[in-house]
Amino acid sequence: MQLGMIGLGKMGGNMTARLLQGGHQLVAFDFNPEAVKSAAAAGASPATAIADLVAQLQAPRAVWVMVPSGDPTEQTVQTLAGLLAKGDTIIDGGNSNYKDTVRRGAELAAKGLHYVDVGTSGGVWGLKEGYSLMIGGDEAAVERLRPIFATLAPAADRGWGRVGPSGAGHFTKMIHNGIEYGMMQAYAEGFAILKKKEAFGLDLHQISRIWQHGSVVRSWLLDLTADALGNDQDLRDIAPYVSDSGEGRWTVAEAIELDVPAPVITHSLITRLRSRDGESYADRLLSAMRNQFGGHAIKKQ
Amino acid sequence: MQLGMIGLGKMGGNMTARLLQGGHQLVAFDFNPEAVKSAAAAGASPATAIADLVAQLQAPRAVWVMVPSGDPTEQTVQTLAGLLAKGDTIIDGGNSNYKDTVRRGAELAAKGLHYVDVGTSGGVWGLKEGYSLMIGGDEAAVERLRPIFATLAPAADRGWGRVGPSGAGHFTKMIHNGIEYGMMQAYAEGFAILKKKEAFGLDLHQISRIWQHGSVVRSWLLDLTADALGNDQDLRDIAPYVSDSGEGRWTVAEAIELDVPAPVITHSLITRLRSRDGESYADRLLSAMRNQFGGHAIKKQ
Repeated sequence: MQLGMIGLGKMGGNMTARLLQGGHQLVAFDFNPEAVKSAAAAGASPATAIADLVAQLQAPRAVWVMVPSGDPTEQTVQTLAGLLAKGDTIIDGGNSNYKDTVRRGAELAAKGLHYVDVGTSGGVWGLKEGYSLMIGGDEAAVERLRPIFATLAPAADRGWGRVGPSGAGHFTKMIHNGIEYGMMQAYAEGFAILKKKEAFGLDLHQISRIWQHGSVVRSWLLDLTADALGNDQDLRDIAPYVSDSGEGRWTVAEAIELDVPAPVITHSLITRLRSRDGESYADRLLSAMRNQFGGHAIKKQ
Repeated sequence: MQLGMIGLGKMGGNMTARLLQGGHQLVAFDFNPEAVKSAAAAGASPATAIADLVAQLQAPRAVWVMVPSGDPTEQTVQTLAGLLAKGDTIIDGGNSNYKDTVRRGAELAAKGLHYVDVGTSGGVWGLKEGYSLMIGGDEAAVERLRPIFATLAPAADRGWGRVGPSGAGHFTKMIHNGIEYGMMQAYAEGFAILKKKEAFGLDLHQISRIWQHGSVVRSWLLDLTADALGNDQDLRDIAPYVSDSGEGRWTVAEAIELDVPAPVITHSLITRLRSRDGESYADRLLSAMRNQFGGHAIKKQ
């Protein structure tokens, strides 16, 4: 089917490629003209602006927004809302906060526009393996987009589904990412202990490879970890600094809001914050306190 | 090849079956005569006692011990040590504490016996899918057992390997289980938050099924979770009481011994302890303190 795609970065660009390979008609726009050129080379119809993209689509239009969450998504959706007509659909495939999605869904519904939120997992591997899609929005709007979801997913009948009303897709994706934080941290801690046990001279790459077959901890994340350890298990070129893109902290806030204890997901976030705090004021203060009450030596900066 | 198997429970029984299917000659013993009868019916040669099992094996003998860790393993190994001859091999396939394994390995080496520790993962699915085997011990002893490992593993060339000297196999399995605790807890917390978000009416089984394909959190544990949620996603017949069999607490102790911060694995263990403490004295005391300083109401038992 025909689909507009706004945002041709790592995710949007790959999704455009996968949709084109699946026989869909794409109209593509990005503020970076090079990205638009690449999409056009792959078979998409290039657009020079959002208005041009909308003009190239036939009603009822469907436009997939794949730009960073927060302001870029807000601005893109507002711009589209001013250009689209009743019955058209905006799809937000990014990692928007589900509360923004619920709000936008209500605003757009008041204008007769459909808003479909798609939590999208699969990273850079999605182009080849397909994306896992958690979808929120009204049933008819989601159903109309079935050919798109069937192509983006690993197969037409699996890896995607409408999980609930507007916001439910992004909510589910947020929790997915919270779980991801916890799983990653569990592997990271386990391998760190193996690494520190120098007496056994363990080969972490070998162990990750053994675990890939038959073990209880086998997973796709372990497959990726094995690849990383195969390149260089000392990881000397990688700084111990872990970023986050927001979903983990939203998951923790949501857990607290719902009175659900989530210690592991919470600690996974905290270890990321700690990894970026090389000058820890709290640790300096702890050291100062130990000195105060016990005369314990302070390690000088 | 010929192998003695002591311990025919869930793990030892299934491993005996898989080895018999692989064409090996098994001599089987368990203190439960019914288990020995079952193994004999499957094609193993039954033994009436450990001494009888040893007598049925040709030198150099190899005996796999698959009994609970701690005293049962200690006693079985000591009994075997008194019956076996120089050049024979004892394999401990259970979840022994690696420090016991290192000690036993040294004791047995002094008597000219080989001791091979095999951390075994795969649970009740191992019979069909094969076991992931993390092996410690001297290279020659491990190499002589290659036909056994090749049959027990998911395939002859994967899912198993010698990771280091005596104790390294059980050490690696211990960390494997620590990681397992963290992964399980991450999923459990995530699904608990989804469950509590009643406004979206999420179908947890559907979501687990979506995540199985293309998502970053896909894993074998997720596959099992999806099966469990498919049976009954309310889990009303399951008490919120989580046991542990020791490897998690050993992992936490080891992390502390090695000065490796492992907050997520540690908290996964703590949540299990908390799950069993329905009468929490600490929580009563917290409630009493709030009442003392702030006059906050106490919920009466």
